[in-house]
Amino acid sequence: MPQLHLEYSANLRDLDTDKALLRLNSALVASGQFGDEVDIKSRAVAHETFRVGIAPVERAFVHVKLALLSGRSPEIKRQLSASLLEALKDVLAVPAGIDTQLCVEILDIDRDSYAKVRFPA
Amino acid sequence: MPQLHLEYSANLRDLDTDKALLRLNSALVASGQFGDEVDIKSRAVAHETFRVGIAPVERAFVHVKLALLSGRSPEIKRQLSASLLEALKDVLAVPAGIDTQLCVEILDIDRDSYAKVRFPA
Amino acid sequence: MPQLHLEYSANLRDLDTDKALLRLNSALVASGQFGDEVDIKSRAVAHETFRVGIAPVERAFVHVKLALLSGRSPEIKRQLSASLLEALKDVLAVPAGIDTQLCVEILDIDRDSYAKVRFPA
Repeated sequence: MPQLHLEYSANLRDLDTDKALLRLNSALVASGQFGDEVDIKSRAVAHETFRVGIAPVERAFVHVKLALLSGRSPEIKRQLSASLLEALKDVLAVPAGIDTQLCVEILDIDRDSYAKVRFPA
Repeated sequence: MPQLHLEYSANLRDLDTDKALLRLNSALVASGQFGDEVDIKSRAVAHETFRVGIAPVERAFVHVKLALLSGRSPEIKRQLSASLLEALKDVLAVPAGIDTQLCVEILDIDRDSYAKVRFPA
Repeated sequence: MPQLHLEYSANLRDLDTDKALLRLNSALVASGQFGDEVDIKSRAVAHETFRVGIAPVERAFVHVKLALLSGRSPEIKRQLSASLLEALKDVLAVPAGIDTQLCVEILDIDRDSYAKVRFPA
C-alpha cells in the first residue's frame, strides 16, 4: 500500500530520479514494514515552476511524501522518515551555490476506506 | 468541494483519461453525497518516472485520491471508494503481461479552514 | 516547513504562476506564522487533463493546498486560508464565460515524523 511521491525543483538537473526511486523503495523494503515489495508505488515529479521563500536568490528543494495505511506507531514513522532522508542524501549531489532543502513527510491513509485491486501479470 | 486526483503510471498508454474522469465524476454524482455536480473537481496526471517495488519487471498502477470535507461516516467513505474502484475497473483495459494495481484513497479536508470562491460564467 | 501546491486547470492560460507563487509566499511571510521565509516551498502545476463536474460546459479551477506542521489553532488556519484566497483573487484574471472556482485547503503534516536537512548555499 505505501504510496511515495518524490517532488523536486527542476533546477536539480543532476538528480537521477530512476536511481532515487529505486533507492527509496529499497529503503522501504529494508524497513521490514511492508509485506510485499510490489505494494510500494513511487513516482517522481519535477517542478519547473516553483519558489522557495521570497528572497531573489536561487534555491532548490526535494520533498518526499510517504502515505501509509494508518496504524503505525510514531517510532516506526520516525524510523521510516529518517531512512528515506538518508536515501535522499545518498543519491542527491547537492549543487554548489544553491541553498537546498530535503524534506520527508509521513502521512496516514484512512485504512477503513482504502480500496484496491491487483491484476497480476 | 470534492477534489479528485487520478494518477497513473505512463505505461498504461491506452487509458482514456477524459473518459476516466467523466466516469469517476459520474460515480460521485450518482452517490448523492454532493449537492451540486459543479463542485467536483478532478484531474489526471501521468507519471513518466515511477517505480513499483524493487523487482526488475514492468508494473503499472492507477491511484485515485478523493479529498472530501471532513464529516462523512466511515460507511459513506467505504461506499465512495468502492464505487470509484468499480469505475476505474470499467474504464481501464488492464494490459496483458503487466502487473497492475488500482487503488482508491479517501482523505478528509479540514472543513473549518477550507476557503472557496466561485465566479459563475 | 510549509509546503504549498498550486494546481490549476490549464484553460486558465493567463495565470502568471511565477507571480502567483511570489504573491502566495508573500502572504505566508506576512502572516508572521513562519520563522524564516526560506522555509516556504511552493510549486505550481497546470493540469491539461481535468474535469469539473459532468455538465458539458467549460469550467476552470485553481486549488491551493498548504501543508503545515501540526499544532496551529483553527483560528490561525482560517486566517491563513483566507489570506491565500485573497492573494489568488488578486493575481488571477477570471476569464469571461468560464465558470471558475478558487479553493484553499489547509492540511496538517505530522510534526513528529517530519525529517529535514538543509544545505545552505
